[in-house]
Amino acid sequence: MQADSRPVIGIIGGTGHLGGALAKRWAAAGYRVVLGSRDAGRAAEAAANLGGRVSGLGNLEAAASADLVVLAVPFGSQQATLEDIRPACAGKLVIDATVPLMPPKVMRVQLPAEGCAALRAQQVLGESVTVVSAFHNVAAHRLAMDGPVDCDVLVFGDKREAREQVIELAEAIGLRGLHAGSLANSAAAEALTSVLIFINKHYSADGAGFRITGIGG
Amino acid sequence: MQADSRPVIGIIGGTGHLGGALAKRWAAAGYRVVLGSRDAGRAAEAAANLGGRVSGLGNLEAAASADLVVLAVPFGSQQATLEDIRPACAGKLVIDATVPLMPPKVMRVQLPAEGCAALRAQQVLGESVTVVSAFHNVAAHRLAMDGPVDCDVLVFGDKREAREQVIELAEAIGLRGLHAGSLANSAAAEALTSVLIFINKHYSADGAGFRITGIGG
Repeated sequence: MQADSRPVIGIIGGTGHLGGALAKRWAAAGYRVVLGSRDAGRAAEAAANLGGRVSGLGNLEAAASADLVVLAVPFGSQQATLEDIRPACAGKLVIDATVPLMPPKVMRVQLPAEGCAALRAQQVLGESVTVVSAFHNVAAHRLAMDGPVDCDVLVFGDKREAREQVIELAEAIGLRGLHAGSLANSAAAEALTSVLIFINKHYSADGAGFRITGIGG
Repeated sequence: MQADSRPVIGIIGGTGHLGGALAKRWAAAGYRVVLGSRDAGRAAEAAANLGGRVSGLGNLEAAASADLVVLAVPFGSQQATLEDIRPACAGKLVIDATVPLMPPKVMRVQLPAEGCAALRAQQVLGESVTVVSAFHNVAAHRLAMDGPVDCDVLVFGDKREAREQVIELAEAIGLRGLHAGSLANSAAAEALTSVLIFINKHYSADGAGFRITGIGG
C-alpha cells in the first residue's frame, strides 16, 4: 500500500494520554496524523514532539483536515467536543474511544442513559456520520511505550466495513482488533474499563487487559 | 479440608445447561449439590444422572436445603424464580449467573433498567441476602466436557469475603476466578456474553471466552 493512499487521521483530544499514544504509533506506522486540541498551540507543541508526519490544530480544524476522526477525550467532555467538531464530520468515519468513567468512582461501572458512550456519540453526530467505537481497554501508558501490548481491541459498529477499517488501523499499530457487534455492544468494553481499573488496584497490576480466547488466531 | 466442612450448593435452574455443567463439576470436586427445578421430578432425574452426591428437589426446597444458592435460569425467569426462593435465602450467599439475553437479539447488549441482572437480583432478594454474580461468560457446553476451560470468571459483589468464597468455588472446578469489583460492575460481564455470542458467530467459533492479562498468575 502506498503511504499516500492511507487516510489522514485526526485525533481529537490528541494531547491526552490515549490520543498521544495512538498518534505516536500511527505516525510510526506511516500515517499522517493531525492532533486536535481545544488549544491549537498545545496541539502544535505535542505534534512537534512526535516528529515529521504529525501536525497540530484546534479540534474543529483537525477534524476538518482529516479523512477519519478519532475521539479520545474524557467522558465529561465528549458531548461538547462532538458538538464542536460535528460540522467537520459529515460523511466521515468517527472512531469513538470514550469510556464513561465518572470520577471519583472510576472503578464502578456507570453507563450513561443512552446505554453507552458510543450510542451517545452517534446521537450527537447524526446519521450522516458513521460511528465505530474501539480502543476502550488498552492502557494508554502501555501503548505509549514501544513493544507489544497484551490486550485485544473490541470494535463495535453497525456497519461491518467500517469496523473492518478500524481493525486495520488497530493492526497497523500492533493490536489485534476484533469484530464485536453493533454499536450498542460498546457497553461491554466501556464497562470493562472500570473493571480493569478495579483489577489493577486489587491485584497491584499496572496495565491489566484481556484476550479473547477460543477463536483461533 | 474435610468434605463435611464444604457448603452444600443448591443450583436453581439445575436442569439447564449451565446449572447442570456446574453441578457435574462441583460434584466431581467433592461438593454436595442439590439441583432445583420448577419440576422436582425432572430435578431428581437429572440428579440421578449425575451420581451419588447430587440430589434433586423443587426450587424452593433446593434453596432451603443448601448453604449457598446458585441461580442459573434464563433472564426471563430470573425475577419470578427469585421471588419463589426468597423465603429460603435469608442470610445466605446467592450467586447469580443470570445474563440479560433477550431473544431473538441475543447478540445485542440489552442491559435491564436496574443496570444489570445482578443488581436486580439484589433488589428482589433484599438486604438480608448477599448477592455475588459470576459465571456469565463460561460456555456451558465447554464446562460440561471434561478438561480445561479457557475462560476467566469475573466475580462481582459488594463484599470482598463473599467474592472470595465464589472464587474458591470457581477454582475448585478448574476456573480462574477474579475479583472484579462491586455488584454494579456485573454489567461488564453480562454485556460481554452478547459480545462473545457475536464473536462465536462472526468467527465461526464454538466457545469464545476471555483471559485477563497483565496481572501475573
